[in-house]
Formats: sequence, C-alpha cells, structure tokens
Amino acid sequence: MPHSIITGTGCHIPTQRIPNAFFMDHDFYGADGKKLARPNADIIAKFQEITGIQERRYVTDDLNTSDIAYLSAERALEGTDRESLDYLIVAHNFGEIRSDLHRCDIVPSIAARVKHKLEIKNPYTVAYDILFGCPGWLQGMIAADYYIRSGDARKVLVIGTETLSRVSDPHDIDQMIYSDGAGAALVEGTEKNAGILSHVSRSDTHQDAYLLWFDRSFHPESLGDRQFLKMHGHEVYRYAVKTVADTVKKCLDQAGLSLSDVKKLLIHQANQKMDEAILKRLFKMYQFEEGPLDIMPMTISWLGNSSVATLPTLLDLLQKGEMNNHVLHSGEIAVFASVGAGMNINAMVYRMP
Amino acid sequence: MPHSIITGTGCHIPTQRIPNAFFMDHDFYGADGKKLARPNADIIAKFQEITGIQERRYVTDDLNTSDIAYLSAERALEGTDRESLDYLIVAHNFGEIRSDLHRCDIVPSIAARVKHKLEIKNPYTVAYDILFGCPGWLQGMIAADYYIRSGDARKVLVIGTETLSRVSDPHDIDQMIYSDGAGAALVEGTEKNAGILSHVSRSDTHQDAYLLWFDRSFHPESLGDRQFLKMHGHEVYRYAVKTVADTVKKCLDQAGLSLSDVKKLLIHQANQKMDEAILKRLFKMYQFEEGPLDIMPMTISWLGNSSVATLPTLLDLLQKGEMNNHVLHSGEIAVFASVGAGMNINAMVYRMP
Repeated sequence: MPHSIITGTGCHIPTQRIPNAFFMDHDFYGADGKKLARPNADIIAKFQEITGIQERRYVTDDLNTSDIAYLSAERALEGTDRESLDYLIVAHNFGEIRSDLHRCDIVPSIAARVKHKLEIKNPYTVAYDILFGCPGWLQGMIAADYYIRSGDARKVLVIGTETLSRVSDPHDIDQMIYSDGAGAALVEGTEKNAGILSHVSRSDTHQDAYLLWFDRSFHPESLGDRQFLKMHGHEVYRYAVKTVADTVKKCLDQAGLSLSDVKKLLIHQANQKMDEAILKRLFKMYQFEEGPLDIMPMTISWLGNSSVATLPTLLDLLQKGEMNNHVLHSGEIAVFASVGAGMNINAMVYRMP
Repeated sequence: MPHSIITGTGCHIPTQRIPNAFFMDHDFYGADGKKLARPNADIIAKFQEITGIQERRYVTDDLNTSDIAYLSAERALEGTDRESLDYLIVAHNFGEIRSDLHRCDIVPSIAARVKHKLEIKNPYTVAYDILFGCPGWLQGMIAADYYIRSGDARKVLVIGTETLSRVSDPHDIDQMIYSDGAGAALVEGTEKNAGILSHVSRSDTHQDAYLLWFDRSFHPESLGDRQFLKMHGHEVYRYAVKTVADTVKKCLDQAGLSLSDVKKLLIHQANQKMDEAILKRLFKMYQFEEGPLDIMPMTISWLGNSSVATLPTLLDLLQKGEMNNHVLHSGEIAVFASVGAGMNINAMVYRMP
C-alpha cells in the first residue's frame, strides 16, 4: 500500500503588516453592546500578553481568498507537472469576501477558482472545498491520504486559505487575533515507509457546536447586517487545552510512538498561551519533567491566527529554513495538530521521508 | 476489501408548493438590466416547455439548510444506532441563509449543525462539509467509499441540502428552476460483491469555472447588494449534454459494464430537456436504436432543481416505492450522475445489494 509524503510546500504571506498599535483608535464593545471602559492601551497590552500576537497580516483590497490560495499553490507546485494532479482540495471557512461587498461567496467553489487560475486543463484534477473549521487543511491532508493509499490517486494538492480580516469585527477585541494567509502542500504516493503514519479527527458538536459562529458586530449601529466571526474565547481555550492534547496522544498511540519520539509539534497558531498550555498538558500526560525546549515552532507573534492557513504556512517556512533553528531531517517525526470551529480537532503523525 | 452499500435513505420535501403561476406577477429582467418585453404568460409557458418544471418546493421562513438536512438525516438513520457513524458529510453550496438576513453563513459548518441537531455524542463521528456544486452529494458518496474501502470507517451518512429559494433572484427567469430540498443516504461497509462498483469525477475549470456564479440581481435597484445564483444557461446545457454522457460511459467502462446492463439512470434533476438530451446522447454512444423507456426516473416536474438534494431525494422516493413503476431489485445496476457549478461532473455505478 502506498504511503503519502509531502513533496512540495508553498505559502503566501500577505504584504500588509498590521501591528497592535493599529487598533489604538478602535472603539471596543462587549458582547452586551456596551463600550469597554478600560483604555485601549491596557486592552491591547493584555491581548498581547495572552495571545503572543504582536502583528498580523492583511491582504490588500485587490486580493481575495482564491488569489492568495493560488499564489501559495504556484510555490508548492514548483518543479511539478500540475497537469498530473489527481485532486485539488481547498480548505477555508468563509469563501471569497470581496473587500467592497462584505458577503461570503462560495459559488463556484474556491477550489474551482484556484484550479482556473492555475490554468490546469486536466479535467480529472478533481477540485473541491472542505469546511471543517481551522483544522480544514489538515482534514484535507487526511482525505488526500485515503485517495493515495487506495492507489487511485498519485498527487494531491491541499490548500488552506482565509481572509479573516474581512470578517473581523472592528468593535470586538477578538478581531486582533485574526489574520489572512494561505498555504499549500503537495502530497504524493511513495512505496517508502515514511510520510503520514496515523491520523485522528473528532467533531465535538454536542456541547460545543457554537463556540465559534458568524454574527453581527458588537456595535451593529455602525455596521448593520454585516456578519463577523464571533468566538466564546474562554470556552474555546478550555476545550482546546484538554482535547487537543488527548487527540495528539491518541494519534501517537496509533502510530506506536511516544512524545519522546517527536521532533516537532506543528500546532495551529491560535493563541500562544493556549498552544503552550496544550504542550504543557502533553508533557504532563507523558510524565515529562521538562519537555524539549524547541519542540514547538511558533509564528503567531508576527503572523497572527490565519485559521486553515497557519499549519501549511508554518510547514512551508520550516521546510524553507525560515524558522530559525527549527529543522526536520529525514526519518524524524513531526506531529501536526489543529482545533477550530465545529468544534473540530485533528492530529497527524508524519515521518520525514 | 469491503464494498460500500446504501443501507438507509431519507429526504425532506419542503411543504410550500410553488406552482408556475406564482411568478405571473414578477418583473423579469435580462442580464443587461432591461425589462423583458414578452408577457409573463409566454415566458412561463416557454420555461415549462424547456425545463419540464410545473412546480417546485420552498421551505417556510423558519427553516434553514441545516434544519432540512437534519430532517432528512433522521429518516435515513431510522433503525440505525447514530452513535456508530464514522463520518457525517454534508454537501451544499450556499450554507445557511436566514430568511430575514439573506447572507450565506458557513461557520460552524452545516455538518456540525446537523450533528448537533441529531444529538450525536460520539466525538469520532467526523462532521464536515464538501463544496462541489450540484454533484456535491455524489462526491460525498465517493469520499465515503474511500473511507469504507480503507477499512477505517464502517458507516457514513452523506447529506445533500440546499435552500435555493433564498438565492433566487425574483427578477431572473432562472429563479423558476430553483427549489429547496434535502436528502440523505447511509453508506455501510459489506463483504458482499455489491454496492459502489466504480466512480468518475471531473472538474472543468479551465473554460467553464464561471458558468454558474453568485452575483447581484438583474434589477439591483430593488435588491441592492443581495447576491443570487446566476447561470449562463445555454453554455451549461451544451457542456452538460456532451460531458455527462462521456462521464457515464467512462464510469460504466471502469465497471466493465454497458448501458444495456443499466436498469436505472438516476440523474441530477437540472432541466428535463437537458436530462433527456443526455440520455439520447448516451443511447447514441451505445448505438441503441431506442433506449429502454423507463430507465430515467424524473422528479423535476413537481420538485424542481434543488441542487445537491435532487439525487438523494430521487433515490429515497424510489427506495420507498414512491416513483410509480420505477423499482430497483437486488443485483440490478443503477447509475448516478450529476453536473453543476465548478463546472463539476461525476458518475457512480452501483449494484443493488
């Protein structure tokens, strides 16, 4: 049975750097519609302390979700005959949102638009979108693994792309978390004993389906019916810390590995404190006195949370040697993990080919 | 290797019957923004002649895409322990569109909402959405087949759900095609040599990515920025007639079968003339003098085109004995085929267990 290995990566990091100071003149409101009493400087300082975010990236008005997906795909496909792709899977959560319209648009699918922009003529490059919250890109990778292991597919491109700046409520503190970005990975079949070793996915919808949702502004008087990404942040934090760690352990168990076998944990860049708390819990589960210090490469301080795009972007930066001392060598184990709207969580154990 | 068989079906047919006479007092405009000169009675008569549609169904204002998906799922799951589902896949193209808001909402995913409504507690029932135009439900069935054939999954619920009435431009003739509906199929693994025998999917994005798209009304003066499903109908027709027939043949070839082996062709209910032209082309490809008269059960005259919902609804009606003389017996071959935005086409050959 073939294994699935990543043979190409690419990302697009939007050009507009938005530092925290950008939000100093915003009017922040609470979920109750009341203006926050604390000074913005205090709000922003506290925000930075918790999330670790110093700046994030926004696309320029002329670019849309499918454009940055396309740019990341071009990089991931360098050196590959794009006409040989069997699937082109795009994960996102809001589709295209034109900067002058503020409405989600998912017809045609983002995958169809990206394939069109890539000028792929092969009709048997099947292009579709998957919606699975922030873990959508990783879920696309898992689907790719099924297609490849079946023997039906040899090459699958999986893209995560999002323009959260277009659904960020300017009156909600949480907007400062959100960022734009796109990343892509090319997955291919190999006979080597490497690549995707195991994966676990879960959907906690019974209690937690609406911890993230789409709703009007905290100050609808100024923004009318426009809809924004809303979040019960504390509940998301509590849920993620417990459940992501459990899922990573289950995934390692499936692969017959332990945390001590793991060289890098590539985790969805949601919130620095949250990701650190997940890692701490994992160390505790494996009764590590102190974990390896350099196991978890982070981009959140300068890239923010770009949803489905954080993992493929992080992977691409790491593969290109742009994550300082973080390097993965052949034979080493990386674990991918993500959490987001749904609530959904997934993890994947990967041996570097 | 396990095979995938359909063990349960369900659908929700919305309660509001909308006859063609409903549109008699509409003001129809062209793509150029000019009011159509022909009397509405002529427009509607011509429409009915081409599409075969006499009436369609709309949901009531209180129901949304996930609600009718849930209702169809409840029926498909009768007699099944829902906690044993491995996947819950939902195909749609516009997400939730509240009747009072007119905006697409896909966070959380429709699958997460449906799983929540079904009160499934099992976190390992992985719930996600797929966007693949009208062929989305069939593409979900194909994904289900991969999960089942791998041995990792035993039970997958695949739902198609859409409320096209919420994206129908009241000033566009094409609105009369669109309908609401939801259908679901439960797919299970079996060791029998039955079920899904072959499938083919294609995405024709190079020339045809934007034959269906989301745009403003033909009379934006009255509807502002609201977005509606738009279609280059003639191009869709030409593309579909040629390419659907080719895809069905390719799929039959893969299964080692001929059209003469096929008992029923279950085709996306897009337009009666178009579906008949596809069948005619198929007969010609197989050099049939005259095809079997009862090969293609149709619902379009009374249900219209409900996108991803037409196929699972048609299947459910057939399975429940509600399609007059159309019956499928054990061992008989059914071919499913669909076409829609992307442009995407797929086909699946299925042997009744």
